[in-house]
Amino acid sequence: MELHERIRSKVLREKVVSKEEAAKFIKDGMTVACSGFTPAGYPKVVPEMIAQRAQKGENIRLNIITGASTGDELDGVLARSGVIKKRYPYQTNTDCRNGINSGQIDFCDIHLSHLPQFIKLGYLGNIDIALVEAVAITEDGGIVPSTSVGATNTFVQKADKVIVEINFAQPLDLEGLHDIYDPGDPPLRSPIPLCRVSDRIGIPYIPCPKEKIVAIVISNRKDSTNPVAEIDRDSRLIAGHIIDFLEFEIKKGRFPKNLLPLQSGVGSVANAVLTNFKESRFENLEIYSEVLQDAVLELIDTGKVSFASGTAFTISPSKLDHFYKNLKFYKNYTILRPQEISNNPEVIRRLGVIAMNTAIEIDIYGNVNSTHIGGCAMMNGIGGSGDFTRNAALSIFTTKSVAKDGNISSIVPMVSHHDHTEHDVHVVVTEQGLADLRGLSPKERVKQIIGKCAHPDFRKELWDYYRKALFYAKYKHTPHMLNRVFDLHNYMVKYGTMKPKVC
Amino acid sequence: MELHERIRSKVLREKVVSKEEAAKFIKDGMTVACSGFTPAGYPKVVPEMIAQRAQKGENIRLNIITGASTGDELDGVLARSGVIKKRYPYQTNTDCRNGINSGQIDFCDIHLSHLPQFIKLGYLGNIDIALVEAVAITEDGGIVPSTSVGATNTFVQKADKVIVEINFAQPLDLEGLHDIYDPGDPPLRSPIPLCRVSDRIGIPYIPCPKEKIVAIVISNRKDSTNPVAEIDRDSRLIAGHIIDFLEFEIKKGRFPKNLLPLQSGVGSVANAVLTNFKESRFENLEIYSEVLQDAVLELIDTGKVSFASGTAFTISPSKLDHFYKNLKFYKNYTILRPQEISNNPEVIRRLGVIAMNTAIEIDIYGNVNSTHIGGCAMMNGIGGSGDFTRNAALSIFTTKSVAKDGNISSIVPMVSHHDHTEHDVHVVVTEQGLADLRGLSPKERVKQIIGKCAHPDFRKELWDYYRKALFYAKYKHTPHMLNRVFDLHNYMVKYGTMKPKVC
Ligand SMILES: CC(C)(COP(=O)(O)OP(=O)(O)OC[C@H]1O[C@@H](n2cnc3c(N)ncnc32)[C@H](O)[C@@H]1OP(=O)(O)O)[C@@H](O)C(=O)NCCC(=O)NCCS
Ligand SMILES: CC(C)(COP(=O)(O)OP(=O)(O)OC[C@H]1O[C@@H](n2cnc3c(N)ncnc32)[C@H](O)[C@@H]1OP(=O)(O)O)[C@@H](O)C(=O)NCCC(=O)NCCS
Repeated sequence: MELHERIRSKVLREKVVSKEEAAKFIKDGMTVACSGFTPAGYPKVVPEMIAQRAQKGENIRLNIITGASTGDELDGVLARSGVIKKRYPYQTNTDCRNGINSGQIDFCDIHLSHLPQFIKLGYLGNIDIALVEAVAITEDGGIVPSTSVGATNTFVQKADKVIVEINFAQPLDLEGLHDIYDPGDPPLRSPIPLCRVSDRIGIPYIPCPKEKIVAIVISNRKDSTNPVAEIDRDSRLIAGHIIDFLEFEIKKGRFPKNLLPLQSGVGSVANAVLTNFKESRFENLEIYSEVLQDAVLELIDTGKVSFASGTAFTISPSKLDHFYKNLKFYKNYTILRPQEISNNPEVIRRLGVIAMNTAIEIDIYGNVNSTHIGGCAMMNGIGGSGDFTRNAALSIFTTKSVAKDGNISSIVPMVSHHDHTEHDVHVVVTEQGLADLRGLSPKERVKQIIGKCAHPDFRKELWDYYRKALFYAKYKHTPHMLNRVFDLHNYMVKYGTMKPKVC
Repeated sequence: MELHERIRSKVLREKVVSKEEAAKFIKDGMTVACSGFTPAGYPKVVPEMIAQRAQKGENIRLNIITGASTGDELDGVLARSGVIKKRYPYQTNTDCRNGINSGQIDFCDIHLSHLPQFIKLGYLGNIDIALVEAVAITEDGGIVPSTSVGATNTFVQKADKVIVEINFAQPLDLEGLHDIYDPGDPPLRSPIPLCRVSDRIGIPYIPCPKEKIVAIVISNRKDSTNPVAEIDRDSRLIAGHIIDFLEFEIKKGRFPKNLLPLQSGVGSVANAVLTNFKESRFENLEIYSEVLQDAVLELIDTGKVSFASGTAFTISPSKLDHFYKNLKFYKNYTILRPQEISNNPEVIRRLGVIAMNTAIEIDIYGNVNSTHIGGCAMMNGIGGSGDFTRNAALSIFTTKSVAKDGNISSIVPMVSHHDHTEHDVHVVVTEQGLADLRGLSPKERVKQIIGKCAHPDFRKELWDYYRKALFYAKYKHTPHMLNRVFDLHNYMVKYGTMKPKVC
């Protein structure tokens, strides 16, 4: 009976096979595009079958494309078994990351809004298989996604063949949450008719010709989301600085009383910032973001947020039951869109989003590194931070002023990798304070960033660098000494700390 | 009689004053926003009066905002007399640049699409005066721009007072060329209804309450545009590589036969590339760009281009008479929009523009520097290159592989300043060849960039750096040696060349 509800076409019910059988469609050298955006809505059982084949000695290496990061049952399982040859466009899995940084896995870091367009234009080659998790398939083959949309609609559209995992652990009540809209291909695109965060512009499932679905697998596994980290003192201070600043902007008449739609990045600081809005005086906030985390549910519960739009629900294990039980309630206040829409420059610019993302390091001139440690090692990827930052009405970057027990300054003379340039970074916030960089020249920014954001332990080093650069540089728009600019980073490699030696 | 045609309101004709009188409205400490985008459509006589006051000892320092760069009668005159305290968002004038690089002038480099929004949101403070060139003022105070729109509409809207220079050297026939449209303020913006390059969506003048216009000055000076540089062998080779590549993309079915709307950057290489399209097999090309240069007129003349949209006409002195004489003809094929529209992420993304911009240097991983020499000295600014690059369907960067008589390699281990990150650079072209970076990991890009684009004189050094980095770097996603990464740049500073010493 339940199967009839989940797979509503008779023809398609006949395509239900074992996970082993389904996995046989996937062969060495193929490009497999999988649903999933954060550990939400990704396929959970077929990847394991591929990994087992690899472990038994089969030569199978794949290009794996997803919406963004996924859970261990996909990225972890495939990375550990050496199946991933190339990975696009984002990941957060430890084993996948290790594979990338050891040189085993080729990783191409792509703006999340670019991905669907790149696939449609054929930039990433042919998609052999789309492997997608769903809660149901309609009578006509329409695929109802689970906890994320990501780029699944594009994968299904462009793939030669589609394999669906119907996950019984994902409630059927998720149906109706999604809003699938395709902006079409250039040059014949029309405006995306999304003017309010809550606008519903598409249909609640991903259209798919029935013939394209070659196998359906039944699964029953929850998303492997992570517990939310305790909110520490520094994150609370960062959140406090942001809220004070935004309140002041409203007083200055720059933003309406309920602000502009908020985007909030990923990571522990980002979640902390949003959580702290609970205690703010703002009302009727709107969220136009990628990932809706626990904090968003709490903001809806407390009436602070009137609507939230995203492309994935990433709810921690402890909140998941609550979320599922109250799905009908939350569906009134939330919507999941394809990342081609959630991250679309058109919509982000139109709405005038306030973007809040986290940096690994920020330099004295306001450039941001969100992806690389020490210039070489990939952390996660740029994700959607570039889509939001560049097109936002206001772009805020947060970071703790130090990392690794205070041994690393997150404020440096020059970031060791650039993801967001000085042009895109309006406000920098650490637990130390907030630097408002709007309209400032590089030298004016230095005073804000070192003066307000750097940790006291490193201020002297940073001022020393800047003063010397200002003195020695022949040209003084952006004073630098290229032969000294990475001294702190090099010191870190040599001594395991950026802190000057105490003699 | 002519004055009645140019200033159609009686009340306003009474506001005609001498340039000295008009300049008196401008006082020390003010923010003055001037029309102008490239040396086109900028005010030409009032700035001189301010400079004279400064030269006579008056203490007058101003914040100068424009659409983009302007001519010497504005930037040169004011920079030489020490009047410019701060300059936004772009410039190309030698004296202004020298002022910036000597530390005299604070310069804030801003994406050109961001500028109008920043002003509307109040990020750059109050605009005391808008000083704008026009060909006419309508009965109701509507200001008809001359050869550029830029951000003039925003300046007029937000300034406390408006001063107009009616320039009789700019033909009245320019009227009707402009299309002024205001997308409104967030969160209440609607879609910009621009779906085809030729769509006319606004009105042909900038609305302005008559009371706001405090002075009108009559001028009679042509735009001080520069002659177009001879197209050299390298530029022709670069253009050839691009055309071959685009033809191949059409064959692969990725683009329609007439491509997608083209954007072409500024500088000599950019102009050469566009000129060479004359000899291509493409037909019915469309241009959606910022600046329409001589090459665009030629492409219209030869029927290669069916429509061109920009925000400024920058026609060289030798072509200017031809342009003016045939204005009625060219007006059928061209339109000038506010830079808030020409550079708008929404429209660029919707149309799927092919962006072609010029770099100063590009690194082996595909990062681009378009603004700084040696990491410190400002050349011009990022201009609109970021607006187009990030939101384009395809983003191409061109540069000659060497600069300064072959002493400098434009391909380097790490760019000394980042304007466009690896995520935004799809294709790199030098006279040596073309590197297609789409979908490649950093290490795969190195092979393309050094192998196809670097000058033979520097390939060994670059490969040596990369191989050592690959060997020594602990983490191998983006292999770098931060202690060696600027060796070529430092060598250049020391020895005046990046070329290894011949012993
Ligand atoms: C930048 C980013 C990694 C920060 O995430 P986070 O969870 O807040 O960060 P943490 O403080 O836990 O730091 C993550 C790791 O980097 C380390 N780190 C942070 N700053 C560092 C620095 N300056 N130098 C070296 N290591 C640093 C931390 O010590 C931690 O290491 P660990 O995993 O060994 O404990 C994350 O936000 C990200 O991936 N951003 C890019 C994508 C993005 O912005 N997406 C949102 C778009 S909507
Ligand atoms: C990058 C840019 C400066 C190139 O312009 P161009 O006219 O094609 O460049 P040129 O080859 O003449 O180079 C300009 C100068 O830089 C120097 N130069 C070029 N590459 C260099 C390098 N790698 N290192 C040092 N100097 C370099 C040249 O020698 C030349 O110097 P000169 O003025 O002393 O003769 C110009 O395109 C620009 O300002 N771009 C940024 C803004 C933009 O893209 N706008 C378009 C948006 S629509």
